[in-house]
Amino acid sequence: MSTDSSEKTPKSASSQFGDQVPWKKRKAELKEKQKQWKKAKLIKQLEKQKQREAAERAKQEESQSNKGRAYTVSVALPGSVLDNAQSPELRTYLAGQIARACVVFNVDEIVVFDELGEDVKSVEGEFKGVGKKGHACIQLARILQYVECPQYLRKWFFPMHKDLQYAGLLNPLDSPHHMRIDEESEYREGRVLNKPPKQGKGSLINCGMRKDVRIDKQLQPDLRVTVKLNKTQNPESRLYKGVVVAPHVPRTEGGLYWGYTVRLASCLSSVFTESPYKEGYDLTVGTSERGSSVDQVTLSPFKHLLVVFGGLQGLEASLEADQNLDVTDPSILFDLYLNTCPGQGSRTIRTEEAILISMAALRQKITAAFSDISTSS
Amino acid sequence: MSTDSSEKTPKSASSQFGDQVPWKKRKAELKEKQKQWKKAKLIKQLEKQKQREAAERAKQEESQSNKGRAYTVSVALPGSVLDNAQSPELRTYLAGQIARACVVFNVDEIVVFDELGEDVKSVEGEFKGVGKKGHACIQLARILQYVECPQYLRKWFFPMHKDLQYAGLLNPLDSPHHMRIDEESEYREGRVLNKPPKQGKGSLINCGMRKDVRIDKQLQPDLRVTVKLNKTQNPESRLYKGVVVAPHVPRTEGGLYWGYTVRLASCLSSVFTESPYKEGYDLTVGTSERGSSVDQVTLSPFKHLLVVFGGLQGLEASLEADQNLDVTDPSILFDLYLNTCPGQGSRTIRTEEAILISMAALRQKITAAFSDISTSS
Ligand SMILES: C[S@@+](CC[C@H](N)C(=O)[O-])C[C@H]1O[C@@H](n2cnc3c(N)ncnc32)[C@H](O)[C@@H]1O
Ligand SMILES: C[S@@+](CC[C@H](N)C(=O)[O-])C[C@H]1O[C@@H](n2cnc3c(N)ncnc32)[C@H](O)[C@@H]1O
Repeated sequence: MSTDSSEKTPKSASSQFGDQVPWKKRKAELKEKQKQWKKAKLIKQLEKQKQREAAERAKQEESQSNKGRAYTVSVALPGSVLDNAQSPELRTYLAGQIARACVVFNVDEIVVFDELGEDVKSVEGEFKGVGKKGHACIQLARILQYVECPQYLRKWFFPMHKDLQYAGLLNPLDSPHHMRIDEESEYREGRVLNKPPKQGKGSLINCGMRKDVRIDKQLQPDLRVTVKLNKTQNPESRLYKGVVVAPHVPRTEGGLYWGYTVRLASCLSSVFTESPYKEGYDLTVGTSERGSSVDQVTLSPFKHLLVVFGGLQGLEASLEADQNLDVTDPSILFDLYLNTCPGQGSRTIRTEEAILISMAALRQKITAAFSDISTSS
Repeated sequence: MSTDSSEKTPKSASSQFGDQVPWKKRKAELKEKQKQWKKAKLIKQLEKQKQREAAERAKQEESQSNKGRAYTVSVALPGSVLDNAQSPELRTYLAGQIARACVVFNVDEIVVFDELGEDVKSVEGEFKGVGKKGHACIQLARILQYVECPQYLRKWFFPMHKDLQYAGLLNPLDSPHHMRIDEESEYREGRVLNKPPKQGKGSLINCGMRKDVRIDKQLQPDLRVTVKLNKTQNPESRLYKGVVVAPHVPRTEGGLYWGYTVRLASCLSSVFTESPYKEGYDLTVGTSERGSSVDQVTLSPFKHLLVVFGGLQGLEASLEADQNLDVTDPSILFDLYLNTCPGQGSRTIRTEEAILISMAALRQKITAAFSDISTSS
């Protein structure tokens, strides 16, 4: 960076020998050099800043401009919680509370496990893998699925059933994928209509709008599908146009919350081993008043978070019933075992309350894990 | 701090003049001086540390050894939330949810306000200050009071009433002041018995134990009182001994959560103006999805915190109905106006859910406000 090679000769010597004329020259030279140094430094700083900004932009683009959410959040709880309710009406209401708690916190999967389960592979109702004692599990799963389904599709996918007798008491989820008839949206949930499509044309889908949607593929009638509507539509046309996408696309590409899936697990260990995600869950949280305080915890970014709740007897009971699990201390089973309500004023927190409380405590920590700017408050 | 005044003469001169003998002496002097400086510095540091430790101890003693909690937390909500329930059973259940949410988070006062209220001072039921439209307020307040009362006192303080018809559906609060018969506790809630005490002796109190309690005072029969039991009791005696204390003593001296009081307010402004605390509320929080994010907020220590929730139409509606309040933007009314659930997956959060979510978000911030060690996580 230095331009004048003569400057490499000893510096400190000049003043000692006091030669006046070179001194002035030297001073000017030094000044010039300093200027250049400063300039170089500034350029370096600017370059670094640019690099930093570019990196940040790349990160933001990954998570914003493309808007998608790559991670998922799953909640698991024992179906036996329904047995705490005092009437069939309240049983239904409780299931609805659980559904709403999960939707408020953008939960993507609800796993209902059999607390007393011994991993008996039986078939009952539409679900498999739940033992005889598991009717509460099946009912909870059914109600969760029912209330997750957009209203305009329910009559097709949920025929009358005793488990749904009091479904009228359920509070609506009011989630983004429960669209009103005239609401505009990039995505919609729909059902493949039973009208044979003409040669070379895609199936017709009922998406709860005033017109049906013609998609790009021929699909089996009565399938539930996620449709991405074309950006431009011909208002004159008798039909809308769209394409079928995977159910995760509204989340991974649109960044939208798109409801939850429901999974039944025949015992606590199946919650972990039968994960729908190839890689399984990479962050697991157990909840208990005997866990360590949530206040001291920070989360690192994850792909698939699982938060597990216990029933009336806590996770210890579920653990004891599970013959696949040798441990008795649930804290060993989880990456984190957390008390999400230190200093609680009631001796026990009910599971449906614990979901809201725990997810509220974790929400900010999840946000922080995925945000560039580390919030130091 | 310098002991030798001669040292004030020019320092740098000595080496220039090179006088050998004083130089050695001087070196020794300097060393000695440095030693003394270091010592003085150390002493100062130690003194400072001691002071700091003493201050911390004083603070801790104030809040720990004496264990008491000086501050209070109040929650206010419109009684109209009950009108959202679909049946009398669910109305009761909803009131119970609110009670439990408040107990889980150690709430000391619940204020039920009339959302449509115009500050009409009428009398209805056992409560005053609620307008004609306010039956939901009265019922909510009654159920909240009922479920807060220890079970063994309920039959005395809550005669049969239509509002309590479905009280059997209420989940128990399981708070520390709801003691089982043989549970040992420094404090107990009780009722003054209707047995005239003998000359010079105090009244008898039913505290839900196997024996009644003789207190230090003569009180009116049927009063509800808080009793502090004597540390040592005579096991032979037919009675326990104790003294009557103010209801806040279990909290302010024992650091225990001791349930909540219930207050009716005829309109939103009365929530603020009719505070039972002489100085009023010194920190007020309004809650709304349109508030600023709770994540960016830190709380300073307070005496009396008030957290206000809206009904179906939010706090804007309560504000509009209140003729005492000129503002239309609720954020002006509160010290903080907070969105306690940024990124919510449902379009609306119900009031009973918002209490759990909001108090969960505020809990850690309240703890942090009163802890010496600022948690920087
Ligand atoms: C009724 S509680 C279980 C109580 C049970 N007696 C026990 O000791 O674990 C039901 C569930 O709520 C959750 N829960 C309750 N209190 C909690 C707390 N303070 N922190 C985290 N989770 C809690 C746990 O998942 C628990 O299994
Ligand atoms: C059903 S919501 C009111 C919705 C109403 N449409 C509005 O826009 O305010 C009932 C109450 O829950 C609370 N609430 C709902 N969402 C909230 C949020 N994200 N943050 C804080 N409080 C919320 C507020 O107290 C609100 O008044």
